This record gives sequence, C-alpha cells and structure tokens, in this order.
Amino acid sequence: MLEKLKEEVFQANLDLPKHGLVKYTWGNASAIDHESGLFVIKPSGVDYETMKASDMIVVDLDGNVVEGALNPSSDTPTHAVLYKHYPEIGGIVHTHSTWATIWAQAGLDVPAMGTTHADTFYGSVPCARFLTQEEIDRGYEVETGNVIIETFEERGLDILAVPGVLLHGHGPFTWGKDAKSAVINSVVLDEIAKMNLFARELNHFAEELPQRILDKHYLRKHGKNAYYGQK
Amino acid sequence: MLEKLKEEVFQANLDLPKHGLVKYTWGNASAIDHESGLFVIKPSGVDYETMKASDMIVVDLDGNVVEGALNPSSDTPTHAVLYKHYPEIGGIVHTHSTWATIWAQAGLDVPAMGTTHADTFYGSVPCARFLTQEEIDRGYEVETGNVIIETFEERGLDILAVPGVLLHGHGPFTWGKDAKSAVINSVVLDEIAKMNLFARELNHFAEELPQRILDKHYLRKHGKNAYYGQK
Amino acid sequence: MLEKLKEEVFQANLDLPKHGLVKYTWGNASAIDHESGLFVIKPSGVDYETMKASDMIVVDLDGNVVEGALNPSSDTPTHAVLYKHYPEIGGIVHTHSTWATIWAQAGLDVPAMGTTHADTFYGSVPCARFLTQEEIDRGYEVETGNVIIETFEERGLDILAVPGVLLHGHGPFTWGKDAKSAVINSVVLDEIAKMNLFARELNHFAEELPQRILDKHYLRKHGKNAYYGQK
Amino acid sequence: MLEKLKEEVFQANLDLPKHGLVKYTWGNASAIDHESGLFVIKPSGVDYETMKASDMIVVDLDGNVVEGALNPSSDTPTHAVLYKHYPEIGGIVHTHSTWATIWAQAGLDVPAMGTTHADTFYGSVPCARFLTQEEIDRGYEVETGNVIIETFEERGLDILAVPGVLLHGHGPFTWGKDAKSAVINSVVLDEIAKMNLFARELNHFAEELPQRILDKHYLRKHGKNAYYGQK
Repeated sequence: MLEKLKEEVFQANLDLPKHGLVKYTWGNASAIDHESGLFVIKPSGVDYETMKASDMIVVDLDGNVVEGALNPSSDTPTHAVLYKHYPEIGGIVHTHSTWATIWAQAGLDVPAMGTTHADTFYGSVPCARFLTQEEIDRGYEVETGNVIIETFEERGLDILAVPGVLLHGHGPFTWGKDAKSAVINSVVLDEIAKMNLFARELNHFAEELPQRILDKHYLRKHGKNAYYGQK
Repeated sequence: MLEKLKEEVFQANLDLPKHGLVKYTWGNASAIDHESGLFVIKPSGVDYETMKASDMIVVDLDGNVVEGALNPSSDTPTHAVLYKHYPEIGGIVHTHSTWATIWAQAGLDVPAMGTTHADTFYGSVPCARFLTQEEIDRGYEVETGNVIIETFEERGLDILAVPGVLLHGHGPFTWGKDAKSAVINSVVLDEIAKMNLFARELNHFAEELPQRILDKHYLRKHGKNAYYGQK
Repeated sequence: MLEKLKEEVFQANLDLPKHGLVKYTWGNASAIDHESGLFVIKPSGVDYETMKASDMIVVDLDGNVVEGALNPSSDTPTHAVLYKHYPEIGGIVHTHSTWATIWAQAGLDVPAMGTTHADTFYGSVPCARFLTQEEIDRGYEVETGNVIIETFEERGLDILAVPGVLLHGHGPFTWGKDAKSAVINSVVLDEIAKMNLFARELNHFAEELPQRILDKHYLRKHGKNAYYGQK
Repeated sequence: MLEKLKEEVFQANLDLPKHGLVKYTWGNASAIDHESGLFVIKPSGVDYETMKASDMIVVDLDGNVVEGALNPSSDTPTHAVLYKHYPEIGGIVHTHSTWATIWAQAGLDVPAMGTTHADTFYGSVPCARFLTQEEIDRGYEVETGNVIIETFEERGLDILAVPGVLLHGHGPFTWGKDAKSAVINSVVLDEIAKMNLFARELNHFAEELPQRILDKHYLRKHGKNAYYGQK
C-alpha cells in the first residue's frame, strides 16, 4: 500500500540526521497521497539503523492507523490536522533542529533579514503561542495543529508562501509540496535562524530586508515569471 | 568475567567521541552488574584506537579493582560512590562536552527552556558547588560523588527524573538505567546546554517552559501512561 | 568547447559544499577564458550528485549563452559585469556561506582584525549597499555587479588586493586569478567573518590589526619580495 | 637523515586538519632531535594531499636548511628561536585555529576557568604583545620568537607548565615534549578558548577556577605523584 510514498517518506526521514537536523530518532517526516486521503509517517522511536521503508505507517486524516505494525510518531495527530486543513500541503517535517529551536525557545518570530530567507519564506516565520492547560487536556498533539492554523489565520499568512512555523518552547514544523520540499524548508529555516541570531548579535540595529529585495528574491524563484532553476 | 557488560561499556565509551562529546580519551562510561555489585569502567588514558572490550576494568563499590591489568579511570571513585548510594542507577557517563561544560564553568543550573529538555530532564539540571580544600585533601574523586549526592538531597531531586548534574568549573555527569541511556542523556544535556545559552542570548527575557508543558512532555515519555515510542 | 575550463569550474563548484560554504545547490563558481572572452559557469539549480563537467554553460561577456543545454546560474549577469570591468579577474564565486552572510545581513564591512585576514585581504572587506527599486527594475543581477564596481571605485580599492565583497542583506562574492583562488578566498572570508564576530563579542574594544602587521603579512605573501610558499 | 622524526612531524602536520585546527596548508608542526641539535619542519605552502614524510625539511638552530629540496615553513625562524632558548621543548605547533585565534584577535589572555584547562595548562595562557616596527624590520619571524620568550620571562612562567601562547592579532603557538604533545596542546587550547568565551557570555561574572582545584587537576596529571593514565 502506497509503497512509493513510503520510500519517499523513509528517505525524507533519513535526510534529517544527514543534514544535522536531528539526533537519534528525534523528528519525523510524513507525506500525503491526495487521491486516497491517506498519509505515510515514520514509526515512533525506532532506530534509524534498523528502520526500513516498509516500517512506515499509513494513517487517515483523523490520525487512525490504516496499515503498519508499529506505533506511528507521537506527533501524528498534528500532521493529520494540518493535512486536513490545508489540502495544498504534500509533506510535513518536525524537528528540534538546534537554531530554529533556539528561536522557538526565545519565543520570537524569525524576521526576514536576508535573501537566503527570501528565497524560501515570503516574510517572517511566525512563532505560535504556548498551549493552554485546557488544550493540553483536550489533546496536546491535535491542539498543536490547531494553534498552527490559528497563527496562520490570525496573521493572514499563505501557508505555502511561509512554509514553516515555530512552536514556542518546542521547535519547528515545516511543510511543502512533498516530503523532500518539507525537508529542504527545514534546512533553510535552521540556517536562517542561525544567521539571523548572529547578525543581530553583531549589529543590534541590523534592519530587516527591504520589501523590494524580499519581493525580488521570492518572486524570481516562486512567482509566475520565476526564472531560477531549470524549467 | 562480566563479558557482556564489558562489551556494553566499551561501546558506550566509543559512542562518546562518535557523538562529539569527547576528544582523545577525555571522558568515561561505566555500567553496573546489580547482582554481583561490581561495575565495569574504562581504563585511564588508553587510546581509543587500540582499546578493546577486554581492557575494561571490573571494580567493586569501594572502588577496588577486581579484574583488569590496567589502571581504571581516575574518576572511578566518583562512579563507585554514585552506584553505592543510588541502586536505581545502571550506567554513568562523565565528559567535558563543550556546551554542558560551558554552563559548568559559568556555575549555573541549566533551566528547562524547551521540550527537548522536558523529554529527558524533569526540571533544571543542577550545578553542584566547588569542593573545599578539606574535601580535596580527603579524596577528590570520592568527595565529588558526595557533593553530587548532597546537591540532589538538598534540592529533593529524584535521581532518575533528573539524570544529570554539572560540577562547577568541571563538567557534566549523567546516568541512566544502563550505559547506553547514560550516553543518550549526555547527548541531550550538551544539546540543551547549547540551545539554552543562545536562546538567552537572543532574548534575555526568554522564559522557562511553563510547568504544564514540562509535565506533558516528560510524562508522555516517562509517566505510567507514556505513549511515546514502541511498547 | 573550453573542456579544461569546464572541468576546473565543475571542481570549484563541488569544492563549495565540501568546504561547508553551500548547502544543496546554493552558490556558484565561474572562470573566464581570457583569449576568447567567454566564461564558464554552473547551470542553475542542478543537483550536485548528478551534475557533470559537461553540464557547465559557456557564456559571453554580455551574459548570452554560447554553449550548453541548461539555464546558467541566475547570477550569471553579475559575473559577466565583473569579468567585463575587471580583466584581471580569472574566477568568481558566490555563496551564502554562514558567517560572511551574517556580516552581510548586519550591513557591516569585515575589518582586518588578524593576520588570517591580512594573508589574503589587504584591508577591510567592504559591504555594498542595497539596490534601489529603479536598479531592481532595470535588472537585478546586472545592477548587483554595478554596485560592486561602484563600491570598489568609490573607496579606491584594488580589486585583487581585496578579492571579495559583501552584498547587504545577501552574501559574499569573491574572486581571484582563477576559480580555485576564488574558492580559497571564499573559505578565508567565511573564516575571518566568524573570527572577527566572536573577537568583538569577547572584547568590544578589540582593535584592528596595526597597519605595520597588515603590511607585513600581506606583503610577505603577495608583495614583489614575497617569501611564503614555494617558487 | 632523521627519518623517524620526519615521519612523526609529517603525522603531526596531518593531525592539524584532522582535528579541525587548520584549513588548507595553514599551520605547521616541527620536532627537534636533541642529540644533533637539528629540527624537522613542514615545507611552506605544500598541499597536504601530495605532501610526503620525505618532503619534511631539516633545519639547524639558526634556521638554516640542512636537508630538503623545498622551502621550509615561513615561520621556521620562530621555531628555531624557541628550540634554542628552551632545550626542554621537543615539538612546536603553530595554527590559526578558530577559537584560540579569536582570543588572540581580542588581545586577551585565556584565563583558567575549568578543569579542562587545568589538566593541561597550569594557569592563564598569555597573549603576547604586537611587534614594533623596529622588530618587524629586524626580522618578523625571529622577533616573534623573542616576544614569546619576553612574555614568559616577564611573567615568570614555566615553559612546560604553560605550554602555549597567543600572539596578539595572529594566533596560537603550542609546544610539548614532542610533536604529538604539541598537537594535543593545540587541540586543548582551541577547546578551552571556545568554552571560556561562551562561559563569559553566559555569565559575565563567571569566576576563574579556584587555585585549589587548578592545583589538584594539574598535579594529579603532571605532578610527581600523578595518578592519571597508565604508568
């Protein structure tokens, strides 16, 4: 069932430690099959050295396991909420990558300070609020997904133009058209989190990128007249 | 004698440089055989490239060598004191890992600022005080163990819920149910030490994780209704 | 066509991730054939694992593709402007390397604070201004080249004595007598950017290198009586 | 001639990039043959991938080449001055390693803030002053050696108890009983430079290690009753 997608999700999970974004089994990647409305996600806490593509778990949009012998990632309900609300998302990644998590722990949005940011994120990457006790009691992982949605709706953000979020005190989620894009967006987010932290340390008055440069870089890569890369 | 345990301790010691926690032969890992009351520890200052599992030293709870041709780690008495006082500990690791040592040199507890911390440590990781001249004269390594015990008793901490400590001006000790867990806890401690340092640099007013989130993350992984990982 | 130069440019591009200066396909290296007035540059957004020397693109000094099936790097017009204006340049590299980009995002020149700097850059590495809306509309990549020229002319800098520049909010360009030298200069620039940031953090009053030491180090390596290396 | 020493010096030079202390060919290691009064040093600017043990240069204590087809390291006269003045030194290493160089650029001594420091350096690692114009004119590399001697004599330091120095605006020199020890001391110096920088950033009031702990750690490893390692 969904063998090709399992392979993609398996590779995306292996890419996380390869890019230095996760240690041990921390972090998880998933991808959805839009036709069946099912998504594939990593099992919880399984050693990467023994994990196989066939260990990936198939889950429906309510977070129920459809196929798979192991427990899915404990963060599965968060992925489910996001896939259900945003049909344009094809893949999701969650990590505790060092520099993005530092901004999450600081409780701050990552401002757009450079073109490395603008090439991928069209504006600040928002930091979502802590969950309340009521939300935790109701279901921590589902409500984590809901707080992400709340953050994007309150700020009127386009989910694909800003393909990532920080959870206060926790770490980043990123997404994209597929699992591979979601991984790339996690790599970018961690790198810009590092750059922006030290740019502000070096110059406390360092400005955000002017809107005209943000527009130029984002649109030359993602706009309808994009001319970056191969067609 | 205790060949399986020697192999585990040998592997745990090799994992320390592999995870970037020690350079050269700095650092040491041990594990106890609860039945015999003997523990196995790395020899002192032996090159990792030539060290074999059979070079591991068997020691009793008073720190006397029971088997082994080489000198045990100079920190052996500290391990012995901890095993004797805390029968729930199965493995111990000592390193001078960069970021945990930085907090030790700063003389500060590592506060719980994120869920990466909460997944492993149920609250701040304490920094134990410097030894006095009298304690150094009486026996530096034994008294180091005693100061760790003093720190946990004065603060009323559960040794397995907070499986690590910093020694002021020195570095971290971590422990766990076996040598492998003690290594993982050292990896986590170094990573959260790095994250928390830069989170505070980025936002001098960054708050600690709310108690409700600390509870949720620690207990979903370690509580009696834990649902993280495979059963 | 220019097969040897394609091989050199291909290797220079591969050296960028090898030295930790670029992730994925970010960054580009080129080199010119002074005889024909044509230069060779990396294709845009092609995966390094499948890229071959024969995929390199041959371009003229107006940025027109002369040979090659793929799109050249989107930054090709910037390279063209620099080669046209500075015939002494043989190779150019552009990256978003972490520490140089941090200074670019901070909008600051990298001052000469040590002999590591002086061995390669004869004085501060300048940070060029943001482009205006008019310049962006006229042609972002061409005008980026023009702003580099403006920066060097306004400050009266020798293009080979200071073989690099930062673009405000973007990242570094470096150059040299060939592609390999341009790569080395990128490695040096990133390293001194890191050193100088932390030297200033450690000592807010850290001075720049005295002129006499800057002269000595630069000239023992690059002056007419240079005695560093083999003849 | 001195084939065994050439092999040791060759290996020590290869260890420098292996431990992340040098990029490209920056840095140099040497070792002396006390019997003949000759020392062996790396050639200047030769690529490590093609360099062989037989390329090492044999030099006398006045810095004259005794054997070898290539130019010796441009820093050879500094090594010669140190070997001549301090017969107890067996090997010398010079690098521009990142964190030690940061302290050199900040113009500050590295204080003893932890036992990682105390295990190798018995007190602060001094930062030597800039050379004057007269000294540069007289001979930059010879006078660099003389300024190191001046620093140790003015402060009454034991050259083997504090086996390293920073040169203001330049970088570290370390030494030891042989080339291998000198390399280890460079690794330690870079690591404590990193730790101490961030310990002070984390806690601006972080204290130096109490003298009693400094004594204990240094002497349990280097004193006449040392009990660290194997006999």
